[in-house]
Amino acid sequence: MISLGAVLFPNFELLDFAGPMEMFGSLKDVLDVTTVAQDAGPVRSTQRVDVVAAHSFDTAPEFDLVLLPGGWGTFDERDNEQLLDYLRRASERAEIVMTVCSGSALLSRSGVLDGRRATTNKAFWKQCVAEGPKVNWVPEARWVDDGKFVTSSGVSAGMDMALAVVQRKFGADAASRLATMTEYEWHRDPAWDPFAKLHGLVPETEG
Amino acid sequence: MISLGAVLFPNFELLDFAGPMEMFGSLKDVLDVTTVAQDAGPVRSTQRVDVVAAHSFDTAPEFDLVLLPGGWGTFDERDNEQLLDYLRRASERAEIVMTVCSGSALLSRSGVLDGRRATTNKAFWKQCVAEGPKVNWVPEARWVDDGKFVTSSGVSAGMDMALAVVQRKFGADAASRLATMTEYEWHRDPAWDPFAKLHGLVPETEG
Repeated sequence: MISLGAVLFPNFELLDFAGPMEMFGSLKDVLDVTTVAQDAGPVRSTQRVDVVAAHSFDTAPEFDLVLLPGGWGTFDERDNEQLLDYLRRASERAEIVMTVCSGSALLSRSGVLDGRRATTNKAFWKQCVAEGPKVNWVPEARWVDDGKFVTSSGVSAGMDMALAVVQRKFGADAASRLATMTEYEWHRDPAWDPFAKLHGLVPETEG
Repeated sequence: MISLGAVLFPNFELLDFAGPMEMFGSLKDVLDVTTVAQDAGPVRSTQRVDVVAAHSFDTAPEFDLVLLPGGWGTFDERDNEQLLDYLRRASERAEIVMTVCSGSALLSRSGVLDGRRATTNKAFWKQCVAEGPKVNWVPEARWVDDGKFVTSSGVSAGMDMALAVVQRKFGADAASRLATMTEYEWHRDPAWDPFAKLHGLVPETEG
């Protein structure tokens, strides 16, 4: 079994976490999924829903796949060395580390994205990219696959990224089946990004 | 403040719950949101993520809006009289009761959907509609707004339904802002339903 650990922190964005977990968590035959946070127990999202972290950073097993959501909490956690240390350790061990929304801004604080191509959410682009001055930020992208690190744009983009990672790891049929089962209109093109244009990050005429 | 209660049960579908809650939970100025289940405490989704129910059926306050997700657990709960009684009571008090996916099949067991127009998920259509023989089931619909009861198709359809209800209660601007913030390509047309065609519920030529 391949293992996936999703990292929670106070004021994470609910759908950043739950969108990809809907996809990964449904792959019961091939994937063990669990949750981890600084302390085990309930963690409150910005949307006022509490999700349980099964493991603390100290007791978490190693994971093949890591998922880091974003949200308002990313900016409160930017100097949390316990979290940044955990992200460094987990990234070193993992095959693929995924982020959603401002999760890439938080991950970039740990240094592991330096020199890598990455994207982040488009509504708070400047605030996010300032967190990682050595990252090669890509302004127009639903998600960016840089091999070990796969980063996605805001909130809903995490579902498209998750399906792309499912396709890469488990095949196109597995990803298509998930999209059909969840009645999700999957954006399969990582360059599809109307929100980059909406927020003026690329000229309208380029699209 | 308007209140919303989301009803959890074992083996609920994570995104059925979390997609709409992303939208509703972000409306902090106008909406109190919380969770309720037979017993307060963690409830495990089919995707192996535990969400905390803040209230039990016995201690839950009254809600203006009610959200019932679907998932495999709906079929285990079909004869759970405590749950069905709670759904009857909550429906009587609420202004709007929303379901996602097979949540409408479960709600129909309580009788409150009798004579109403409703939809449900398309992959398990026959199994779902059999639960409510007196419901006027609509096979081709992303969601159906029957006034008090708003029912949506499978999993992802809950996000479109939630935005439609946000538009109805709080205005089109509020709904558009949420879609933009979450970088969600909102399907605004309740008749948009490629999955009904995919599963052979309507002739291909009709679309």
